[in-house]
Amino acid sequence: MLKGYTVPKSPFGQAALTPPPPWHYSGDVVGVEFSADPAAVAACLPSGLVPDPKTNGHAIMLFIDWQFTAQDDEYLDPARYQYREAFILVDAVYRDTPVMWCPYIYVDNDAALARGWTQGFQKKLGSVYQTRSHAAPSAAAAPVAPGGRFGASLSTHGQRLADACVTLRKPVENGLSLLTRPTVLLRYFPRLVAGLQDKPAVNELAMSVMDNLAVADAWIGEGELHLPEAHGEELYALAPKRVESGFRYSLSYSVTDLKILEDYTA
Amino acid sequence: MLKGYTVPKSPFGQAALTPPPPWHYSGDVVGVEFSADPAAVAACLPSGLVPDPKTNGHAIMLFIDWQFTAQDDEYLDPARYQYREAFILVDAVYRDTPVMWCPYIYVDNDAALARGWTQGFQKKLGSVYQTRSHAAPSAAAAPVAPGGRFGASLSTHGQRLADACVTLRKPVENGLSLLTRPTVLLRYFPRLVAGLQDKPAVNELAMSVMDNLAVADAWIGEGELHLPEAHGEELYALAPKRVESGFRYSLSYSVTDLKILEDYTA
Amino acid sequence: MLKGYTVPKSPFGQAALTPPPPWHYSGDVVGVEFSADPAAVAACLPSGLVPDPKTNGHAIMLFIDWQFTAQDDEYLDPARYQYREAFILVDAVYRDTPVMWCPYIYVDNDAALARGWTQGFQKKLGSVYQTRSHAAPSAAAAPVAPGGRFGASLSTHGQRLADACVTLRKPVENGLSLLTRPTVLLRYFPRLVAGLQDKPAVNELAMSVMDNLAVADAWIGEGELHLPEAHGEELYALAPKRVESGFRYSLSYSVTDLKILEDYTA
Amino acid sequence: MLKGYTVPKSPFGQAALTPPPPWHYSGDVVGVEFSADPAAVAACLPSGLVPDPKTNGHAIMLFIDWQFTAQDDEYLDPARYQYREAFILVDAVYRDTPVMWCPYIYVDNDAALARGWTQGFQKKLGSVYQTRSHAAPSAAAAPVAPGGRFGASLSTHGQRLADACVTLRKPVENGLSLLTRPTVLLRYFPRLVAGLQDKPAVNELAMSVMDNLAVADAWIGEGELHLPEAHGEELYALAPKRVESGFRYSLSYSVTDLKILEDYTA
Repeated sequence: MLKGYTVPKSPFGQAALTPPPPWHYSGDVVGVEFSADPAAVAACLPSGLVPDPKTNGHAIMLFIDWQFTAQDDEYLDPARYQYREAFILVDAVYRDTPVMWCPYIYVDNDAALARGWTQGFQKKLGSVYQTRSHAAPSAAAAPVAPGGRFGASLSTHGQRLADACVTLRKPVENGLSLLTRPTVLLRYFPRLVAGLQDKPAVNELAMSVMDNLAVADAWIGEGELHLPEAHGEELYALAPKRVESGFRYSLSYSVTDLKILEDYTA
Repeated sequence: MLKGYTVPKSPFGQAALTPPPPWHYSGDVVGVEFSADPAAVAACLPSGLVPDPKTNGHAIMLFIDWQFTAQDDEYLDPARYQYREAFILVDAVYRDTPVMWCPYIYVDNDAALARGWTQGFQKKLGSVYQTRSHAAPSAAAAPVAPGGRFGASLSTHGQRLADACVTLRKPVENGLSLLTRPTVLLRYFPRLVAGLQDKPAVNELAMSVMDNLAVADAWIGEGELHLPEAHGEELYALAPKRVESGFRYSLSYSVTDLKILEDYTA
Repeated sequence: MLKGYTVPKSPFGQAALTPPPPWHYSGDVVGVEFSADPAAVAACLPSGLVPDPKTNGHAIMLFIDWQFTAQDDEYLDPARYQYREAFILVDAVYRDTPVMWCPYIYVDNDAALARGWTQGFQKKLGSVYQTRSHAAPSAAAAPVAPGGRFGASLSTHGQRLADACVTLRKPVENGLSLLTRPTVLLRYFPRLVAGLQDKPAVNELAMSVMDNLAVADAWIGEGELHLPEAHGEELYALAPKRVESGFRYSLSYSVTDLKILEDYTA
Repeated sequence: MLKGYTVPKSPFGQAALTPPPPWHYSGDVVGVEFSADPAAVAACLPSGLVPDPKTNGHAIMLFIDWQFTAQDDEYLDPARYQYREAFILVDAVYRDTPVMWCPYIYVDNDAALARGWTQGFQKKLGSVYQTRSHAAPSAAAAPVAPGGRFGASLSTHGQRLADACVTLRKPVENGLSLLTRPTVLLRYFPRLVAGLQDKPAVNELAMSVMDNLAVADAWIGEGELHLPEAHGEELYALAPKRVESGFRYSLSYSVTDLKILEDYTA
């Protein structure tokens, strides 16, 4: 009887891409809030979601340096489990509930890719970087303080997909206020049998369930974001028309569950 | 209506990890045929397969430099679509049919990872290298000739998982004779809903369907293979007890279909 | 007494980035011949070289998949020694001798970087890819034949620096005719002592010495080349005004020596 | 007149691997203090250094997540300038002065490699990871606190070279007390001209000059360190005989100068 939460299934379950939940995450976020072309946002929504009539076009782009652990001290094996992520969330509505939809997301780690697909985060590989803040004072330290600046970028297969810069102005009293809408996701796994390749084996609209969500050291200020055109990608269709703000905070949560909203599997 | 064969689904279907089939592959293979511990081979078989009573323990380890294309000249974008792969196949029996089972496979590319999962190749990311043969004569050229030597290696997350070396002795008249058994695979996609995490959404035993299979320039000789122990991996349980041969050939085939053998989805 | 041709010097000389010469190379070249802005070419020449009055602006961009070996079967350790390279050569004149000058070159391997600096190739790290030709027939095989197409690209730090495509039309009878001018290089190693940072410890104009130069399977046809603007790079200043041709060949040579043309060390 | 502190020299000096000093660094250190085989330490010393009769064999291994900037906001381009480093320092004596010698050092970035060579850090490329500490509370956060644990690893070309783990016990009042000896380095740049390949163009024993050295949040506790054998490396000759402690701190300093101790250039 093979073991493991994901592939590859193995005799001892040690080879699986990711250990089973609970999954714990703690990381640092650099992000930009902006308005994209409302038609482009509407075009990237899946079945089950409609544009938010009040905020259609509103979006955030996040760059996160993540540390992960499950039950076996995975945080002590950073070569395998630490990773970096970049993604975009756009406003939408699910049955009268304001939500955010994640059309594009990139990580630099296969364990994170596998967990993501399981959750409905449609992850691809990318190279993600953000300016860090270090405790020892230096021109290189990037303290979290008024005027503090943080760069971030995303590339994939050698093409730059996003360049961002955030300038901090002031702390945000209630950091959780930056995360007001739940995230809607798509669990999708195709069939390969001839004649069934457009009939996915899994096609579920899902809502992220985040336990113990915590935000620390949240700051807000100005932001810049460029999403240059790139072959084989569609992120750039969501390029900013107007940037609202830039922000930075530390974020943690755990994953033990997922809420399935709709099952579109044929 | 979002488009794309795999995630991420997008307005134009250009962002998906992989274009839809037909998928065409051409590449160079360096491989070693060997005998592993029969108990270790038996232990890595999935439900539906049993050890081959005549050859249990027999295995091959393959390192392949692949070029891929679908219908849109993907072979002209090697930064995105060219990749390297290493995997092990072990003998087994499916309902009286001698087959090979692929317990572990590694690639260095996310499009290949996504296609692999769809087929039932339980792919993880790895770094794969093989000695190449170049046409311009040199001590570095590695000609395909008697005594020609080819090294190969696999690493993941900075740990070496396999080291191989092959010394060619003579051409193989019928290269297809090296590929006699069909490959059995596992399509597996878990659920994340609490209480259902051990009830996968997809759990199918599948058989690879290879169209237009061709082998060119096949040579055989001696082989060496080391599968050192590595944390977070189980490949090393299949380390050689005895090496039979080493080989090298060029290989091509196309994928348009998959045969589902058993559906174990609950 | 520490040993090793380059750093790091070590008790047994096994840790050095590269073994000592002779160095043997065999590889596959995809390239484009073109005309850049003559002023941009003139601006990138080092002291000791002047623009070629007859051909100023003429340049070639080469993408090479290299295999390397020295005296210890390094070609059997492809994870450490196989590499990919992209570089540009522009026409110039050294004391009445028509030469080519290499202003920018990128490799994906530290041993190649170290050898390069020693020769005067001013190497940085980059990700380089080219379409390969495989023997097993397939839509993915890219045969070397009339109409055969080969893509190539260069990226660094997640920015695309070059995209090329070559369409083969006919074999070149004498492949060596594609390599008529010697390559001039700059060996340069700065000082860090305060006050001496603009007085390099090594500043030598050098000419590449290639032993046993061989070209095989040379073909010529049409080419395309794009050198997009990128932050922290100046390659794009040499973007094509007109493309002359595209070509592909296999190349080998050995390095045992270097010719110092001028010593500008203060 | 070409510009740039290092290669490649270019018309605007923007293409050079690294901007000129001052160089500013801020980062997080995870390290282990230990005793290696005294004969192995003695064997790795360069001319000009002798074993420290009182502490011969004493060594530290450091893993550092670095942020770098020069004068042009390089810290806002983390894809190009942020990097990770691992190195070993062993006790030695230079003319009656107790010093530390850096025989082996690895970074994951070419700008850092180039600066290192200039200083006398004999850098190669490697993959380096350390557990980070994030502000948002979580099982994944790794707070700096009694019992806090931090893993670290180094790999190169797919081989694991070092695995470390540190368990914090108590703060260190004066963090600078952890950095008592100056670091001695080797600036070494070979010649390639035939007959002169063992007569380096630069061969200088140097001492690191660190301006504005600061240590913050220093903690000490227990350490573990494994330096497994690896082909093409000699670090493992310095494997611990006994581990003294583990530690973690934040570190910053600037570089504007270097002290040349001895010039062995022929």
